[in-house]
Amino acid sequence: MTVKTKNSARLRDEERARLIWLLTTDKAIISTLLGKLTLAEQYDVGTLADDIAEVGVLVAHLPPPDLADTLEALPSDERHALWSLVESARRGNVLLEASENVWDDLIDGMSDQELIDALQYLDIDEQIYLVHHLPRNLTGQLLATLPPDERERVRQVMRYEKNRVGALMEFGVITVRPDVTLQAVQRYLRRLGKMPHNTDKLFVTGRDKTLMGELTLTSILLNDVQSKVSEVMDDDPLTFSPEDIAENAARTFERDNLVSAAVVDASGKLMGRLTVDDIVDVVYEETDSDLRRMGGLSAEEDVFAPVAKAVKTRWAWLAVNLCTAFIASRVIDGFEHTISRLVALASLMPIVAGIGGNTGNQTITMIVRALALQKIQPGNLSFLILREMGVALVNGLVWGGIMGGVTWWLYEDRALGGVMTLAMVLNLLVAALMGVLIPMTMVKLGRDPAVGSSVMITAITDTGGFFIFLGLATLFLL
Amino acid sequence: MTVKTKNSARLRDEERARLIWLLTTDKAIISTLLGKLTLAEQYDVGTLADDIAEVGVLVAHLPPPDLADTLEALPSDERHALWSLVESARRGNVLLEASENVWDDLIDGMSDQELIDALQYLDIDEQIYLVHHLPRNLTGQLLATLPPDERERVRQVMRYEKNRVGALMEFGVITVRPDVTLQAVQRYLRRLGKMPHNTDKLFVTGRDKTLMGELTLTSILLNDVQSKVSEVMDDDPLTFSPEDIAENAARTFERDNLVSAAVVDASGKLMGRLTVDDIVDVVYEETDSDLRRMGGLSAEEDVFAPVAKAVKTRWAWLAVNLCTAFIASRVIDGFEHTISRLVALASLMPIVAGIGGNTGNQTITMIVRALALQKIQPGNLSFLILREMGVALVNGLVWGGIMGGVTWWLYEDRALGGVMTLAMVLNLLVAALMGVLIPMTMVKLGRDPAVGSSVMITAITDTGGFFIFLGLATLFLL
Repeated sequence: MTVKTKNSARLRDEERARLIWLLTTDKAIISTLLGKLTLAEQYDVGTLADDIAEVGVLVAHLPPPDLADTLEALPSDERHALWSLVESARRGNVLLEASENVWDDLIDGMSDQELIDALQYLDIDEQIYLVHHLPRNLTGQLLATLPPDERERVRQVMRYEKNRVGALMEFGVITVRPDVTLQAVQRYLRRLGKMPHNTDKLFVTGRDKTLMGELTLTSILLNDVQSKVSEVMDDDPLTFSPEDIAENAARTFERDNLVSAAVVDASGKLMGRLTVDDIVDVVYEETDSDLRRMGGLSAEEDVFAPVAKAVKTRWAWLAVNLCTAFIASRVIDGFEHTISRLVALASLMPIVAGIGGNTGNQTITMIVRALALQKIQPGNLSFLILREMGVALVNGLVWGGIMGGVTWWLYEDRALGGVMTLAMVLNLLVAALMGVLIPMTMVKLGRDPAVGSSVMITAITDTGGFFIFLGLATLFLL
Repeated sequence: MTVKTKNSARLRDEERARLIWLLTTDKAIISTLLGKLTLAEQYDVGTLADDIAEVGVLVAHLPPPDLADTLEALPSDERHALWSLVESARRGNVLLEASENVWDDLIDGMSDQELIDALQYLDIDEQIYLVHHLPRNLTGQLLATLPPDERERVRQVMRYEKNRVGALMEFGVITVRPDVTLQAVQRYLRRLGKMPHNTDKLFVTGRDKTLMGELTLTSILLNDVQSKVSEVMDDDPLTFSPEDIAENAARTFERDNLVSAAVVDASGKLMGRLTVDDIVDVVYEETDSDLRRMGGLSAEEDVFAPVAKAVKTRWAWLAVNLCTAFIASRVIDGFEHTISRLVALASLMPIVAGIGGNTGNQTITMIVRALALQKIQPGNLSFLILREMGVALVNGLVWGGIMGGVTWWLYEDRALGGVMTLAMVLNLLVAALMGVLIPMTMVKLGRDPAVGSSVMITAITDTGGFFIFLGLATLFLL
């Protein structure tokens, strides 16, 4: 007799960890699963067979989202081995839950037909999403599987960019008429027999599909069954347009604690709905890619991608960084004469540059986040610049003063100490000013302020720091 | 006659922007609102009165979450002026939706009694949350407002740390018995007259409060009214423990597309529930603070805090940074003799350090994110280290080779070019190795891997880069 295991979040975490452990610690499991070795060739057949059986049980037991996360946590071979164990009926769902970084790996062993077959188990909007974004062109084949009247809708949705509400919306909505009773609604629902996932409300529409209101499941249950829909519906619901930016929609969901919301076209006709599960995905992706882009890391880099792919995704930012470092190096080279007369400058200059880089990165991180959270509006820009300059001035005087004192004491040179303090104050001011101006300018130009902002500010504070410090030294110390 | 405005997400965004614009562009509005000027003292009374009236209309129209966001996007004076317009009945909700960064500002003009009064409009779990985390000790006063039997529960919840499920859970749950019919459940709900927000399911419990299953609203509506609860309930629902980490719970919500879930104690008794709106907040806060901490920015820093406060929240990391820069400076100083013989080294050394810092930051960002997303398990650590070292080796050979060539050409010194290439390869390897090891070690030590990881890796690649480059130069070029 087995004890019934409780389905707790912690148990699932443990199962995923166990699966990863099994797949990554014994190469023989992978070789066997990938068909490179037969079971008979193994020296320790008993344990291996047990382990492989356990892998099979775990794969069968874990739901698609957990499998997707497990796949993301595996190197390429192990990923293929695990994928080979996922049955076709679940592959569509796993693909949907997996991040784009691993799509390449997962689909490269599947034929177009196998992929289209795997998609058949998904809702139509999910199929469209995958077909539209998978790194393989399957649009034609998907359209061929659809009834002709659906094709136009699919083409329409495919027009929206990935970061728009239109690309995220689901078609699965239940609509009711305003003039029926709640009892009739309940009868209708029981006849339908099921509701799309995360249905917390029905949409009330007129004959021409115009959205007239929303009827929550709660209000169906709480009100008298003889009430008319129009009496208990919310007649001024919050709606989205398919052109709205997905990230902004996510903030609205967070603000209003929404579970689902209607998407309507410009004339007020119901097109579909957004649900909170898609929104949570948007939030994770958005903040994750902000973090990556600020550090000059490609949004697509997969932590388990092979070396060749990682080199390819990173080379551009490295090249940019090398160019900026080279420029800084040329600035120093211009002061070769100064340095040769006072070698101490060579050991002090990285302090000026480093402290500027630190402050610049603090400022720019804060501004990029504030922009993402829509906290910065035209009215408060000048306040921000003045505030950051003020912080930089205070820090420059305090820490620059300390470093100036230390320099004076170390090199017994008061003028050198003074140059140190002045250079630190000036470079901190540059860092603060540019830390606000760079992201704001990029927004003005319609660019993403997070992209490589850290690389840019470091370039400026390095070059600026060297120039200011060595320039002041040339003026005052020679 | 006015046209009825549609309640779209975009309209609300515009209203928030307009409110911020009004409050930040005309100082006279703020002065009048804060009572520093009377309307009569104004030179342009007509416009001002109109603007103030518009501010009032916007404040009355915007819901609490939008007001919270607006407050976060304002400097201190403007924040106080706006807060003074928010009526007491809505202040609790606004506080709840506002981030901790602005709590200080908002409550500093309110007496303890005013605060407790404002809290009375909230659910008990929301009151506890605020009282527990507001920067003022109100626990005693809150307990005094509660019936004695609630006090024990409050004390119990206050034991959980902020990042635990126990601190996030809500008490507002509807429970039903397994042996009643759906019709009885519907009658019961109608008698209750309302449900807690984001109720998508009821909890089925036995007499001792043991959770036996979950009954979704959907299943109440879809099944025959004569069905017993026990026949249609989910008898193996996913549950959380109050000790679970909130961030992990958020991943589970994302994986399973949950709207709410039960929190049960070790003996399986229902304690409360988690809802997706709290989870979305957790996700935003988590990724936001990851971003801030990596850059050595305090999680509490408010983009509109006054200069003095910003200086205080940032000084620690600046001091750390200054110390590490000072150490790097001492390393260079140790090679003063080498530099004085070959001044070109002074201009080349920042390139070696900079490229190492870039690669180290890329690696560490990726590892910290992968750790947060639970993608790294003991089984795949060695793969990761080897992969990062492989990427560093390739990049080092390619870019180090190029820079070596450029150096050779610029200074017409082949040996100097060779030292450049070798130093870049070695420093990139150091950066990659430490980029993996630093966060992994911090996790082993039970620390947050994001805290200051960027500052640490930069310190290592700077010091390491200078030491490697100048050391090699001393060995081979003198």
